[in-house]
Amino acid sequence: MGGTNTDFGIVDKEGEIWFRSSIETSSYTKAKDYVNDLGNTIKDLIKKNNLKDNIKGIGMGVPNGNMNDGTVKDAANIPWTKGVLVHLTEMLEKKTGLPCKLTNDANAAAMGEMAYGVAKELKDFIVITLGTGVGSGIVSNGQLVVGHDGFAGELGHVRVIRENGRLCGCGRTGCLETYASATGVARTARECLEIHPERESVLRKYCKITSKDVYEAAKAGDELAIDVFNFTGRILGEAFCDFIAFSSPKAIILFGGLAKAGDFLLKPLKKAIDDNILFVYKGKTEVIISSLNDDNYKGKNKDINKDKAAILGASALAWE
Amino acid sequence: MGGTNTDFGIVDKEGEIWFRSSIETSSYTKAKDYVNDLGNTIKDLIKKNNLKDNIKGIGMGVPNGNMNDGTVKDAANIPWTKGVLVHLTEMLEKKTGLPCKLTNDANAAAMGEMAYGVAKELKDFIVITLGTGVGSGIVSNGQLVVGHDGFAGELGHVRVIRENGRLCGCGRTGCLETYASATGVARTARECLEIHPERESVLRKYCKITSKDVYEAAKAGDELAIDVFNFTGRILGEAFCDFIAFSSPKAIILFGGLAKAGDFLLKPLKKAIDDNILFVYKGKTEVIISSLNDDNYKGKNKDINKDKAAILGASALAWE
Repeated sequence: MGGTNTDFGIVDKEGEIWFRSSIETSSYTKAKDYVNDLGNTIKDLIKKNNLKDNIKGIGMGVPNGNMNDGTVKDAANIPWTKGVLVHLTEMLEKKTGLPCKLTNDANAAAMGEMAYGVAKELKDFIVITLGTGVGSGIVSNGQLVVGHDGFAGELGHVRVIRENGRLCGCGRTGCLETYASATGVARTARECLEIHPERESVLRKYCKITSKDVYEAAKAGDELAIDVFNFTGRILGEAFCDFIAFSSPKAIILFGGLAKAGDFLLKPLKKAIDDNILFVYKGKTEVIISSLNDDNYKGKNKDINKDKAAILGASALAWE
Repeated sequence: MGGTNTDFGIVDKEGEIWFRSSIETSSYTKAKDYVNDLGNTIKDLIKKNNLKDNIKGIGMGVPNGNMNDGTVKDAANIPWTKGVLVHLTEMLEKKTGLPCKLTNDANAAAMGEMAYGVAKELKDFIVITLGTGVGSGIVSNGQLVVGHDGFAGELGHVRVIRENGRLCGCGRTGCLETYASATGVARTARECLEIHPERESVLRKYCKITSKDVYEAAKAGDELAIDVFNFTGRILGEAFCDFIAFSSPKAIILFGGLAKAGDFLLKPLKKAIDDNILFVYKGKTEVIISSLNDDNYKGKNKDINKDKAAILGASALAWE
């Protein structure tokens, strides 16, 4: 579920999407109407494809969703959750007759990696989502770490700079998210251009720099753009050292748009870990890129299996 | 197991110690001889008290112990573990015929709190041990977080000051342990006296200040000593905000010598949490002092039940 659309699909145990559809999240003002239409569209998709007895359950990835009780409240950009505690899974279960589970996007990504992705064999790992913000899904001993209230894993709001850190959307300063998100990368680029007027860079030609611009510039050999990723990777790597001291994961998996920066981000990140890690963890934790958005899909349903990471992640909840 | 002695006792389900004994850890040079004597002393204690069929198992708290495979290597101050991987539980099981489990001291403390202490009803909490160093035992969904290698939970080595932080025993700088341990408190006091030659304090009369001196001075109203605890509490509270963002515990439990500083530490600590916590966690996590070293023991075996926290913690492993 996103602020604009709710995408959904029917997924098999191997992570192949067979049927797919969507409704517009933003066109509703009441949870009841949303669930009614969503439930009907799901039921139609099942009926049309004669899958009535083959559906094990429904998994949802919901921004700000609480896994413990299946509710959502105050999800950014979803007006019908503002100030209202919506019992989403309960409502959808009633409507569809199918068991339903939800969690937030980052936890769903972690479940997806465990069910179909690079974490198939792992019991201890962390997924870091690098998008507009920074989110995380933590798995310890094969279980999601959700905390006593269902809201554990806000690693984007661990404070990495305690003095004069950047102002964060959460109202605090120095959060990891202000440096390591797509917006953080663009912010670093703008700061860098301003602090170093003497440095040449293709980025100077943009009036509004995005992280994608920085990536394209780095690929073209722009040194300032490369330095932006070096800085971002170092901040992330130093933060990862603290995360490793917490749960000693076998792997940290990078997920989301910024992860596409590949080695521009990975190289300084891994170096920062090597330089800063506590001896007992040295060389033990891998940093890998998520494979859920696999571009090498070889099956029959090519169009349906494009940009499928979010759906796979959510669907993984249903196997539980 | 400590560097000097190995204390052990026979503990019932309510956390009452019935019989107690010890051997000298430091008098051995080989693991084999240590386990042999330890096993014999345990067996004698069981036999003497006719408890042969009443013992469920053995739990051990071992510095640097690895819960996953029951081994220990390179424990500080225990020469017979230096450079040798000792299969301690396996050896003791063979010797005694009893199932045996071990973990490090901080994890044992967490298990103890869950079995007999303030965490009896909790499934998500963190124990922070404030002694010579700072250790931690993390429980998520009722399970210890041990990580893929058994070494998770080194929160004393999360870096709280990234620029010009204090040098830590681990070779890195700015670790929480360099500020929030008993040694860290003494260090803060010495720094404070040096930076502020104009400030009066009873602490100036000591040639070697300990954290206990700082506590006694604070109790007597010494303002510099009180400021030392204010600083320590703030550093701890800010670090706890990051820990809460990780696992959203219902409580953080303070354990060990420095926890006795009570409100001198707790008040600034709680204020720092309130001032810095992410909104979603506001007011949700309690900070409490461990009750395992209960001074209000009312039972028959008063002497035996003194300073029992470490034994209780270790014994809790055996109920698993």
